[in-house]
Amino acid sequence: VNSRAIIKSKQTQKEVNGISTQVVCTEFSNYIFVVVTQFGKIGTLVSVTPDSRCNDLSTPTFTTKVLLGKDEPMTHVCAKNLSTFVSLEAANRPILLGLALKESSKDSIQHFKEMIKSCQVS
Amino acid sequence: VNSRAIIKSKQTQKEVNGISTQVVCTEFSNYIFVVVTQFGKIGTLVSVTPDSRCNDLSTPTFTTKVLLGKDEPMTHVCAKNLSTFVSLEAANRPILLGLALKESSKDSIQHFKEMIKSCQVS
Repeated sequence: VNSRAIIKSKQTQKEVNGISTQVVCTEFSNYIFVVVTQFGKIGTLVSVTPDSRCNDLSTPTFTTKVLLGKDEPMTHVCAKNLSTFVSLEAANRPILLGLALKESSKDSIQHFKEMIKSCQVS
Repeated sequence: VNSRAIIKSKQTQKEVNGISTQVVCTEFSNYIFVVVTQFGKIGTLVSVTPDSRCNDLSTPTFTTKVLLGKDEPMTHVCAKNLSTFVSLEAANRPILLGLALKESSKDSIQHFKEMIKSCQVS
């Protein structure tokens, strides 16, 4: 009988530039599921896969693919930006990222990163 | 300032025909996210959208679409089967369903349904 640890999930809520923002992180063995939402919605769903690297000195790069919702250039930029350090801490696991943002200024993105960090599951 | 209730998430774990099975349900305003996993993985990701109905007497029907993973006929059958009552209780909201199953016998599906019911979030 295979007894497995329960699936880890954490969430946090914060005002970011006056906008109520929720972050939920859930850890699966093959994916980290992260939702950043300012609408309560799951939003645009993006898979973020780290590209394999030849050496560890290079900056990590990602392949992003919109699975659900509007496929806009800004979504890919945000997804790559938010994923960089999540992926590093998650040993290069791919990320399933839901984004439902009212605004995505550089400053807000920084806050989202901190929120994701505070509910890091792996 | 928009103060919103925290995102509701529940999970349960059980042996189904000798296989350790986890179910996680998370409620977003536009989707119910449900994962049924026997591998700890998120598995095949399927969007399940209820078709609009002309009258309430008809059996609900769904459109299923594989977003991530192998697109197999059995996945669509399982997804529709598991979604019927989730969707009814979730006021016809679409479901984002992750399925990572070692086996999907009729008996197991019935157990999965009960597990989903026990961690109903809406």
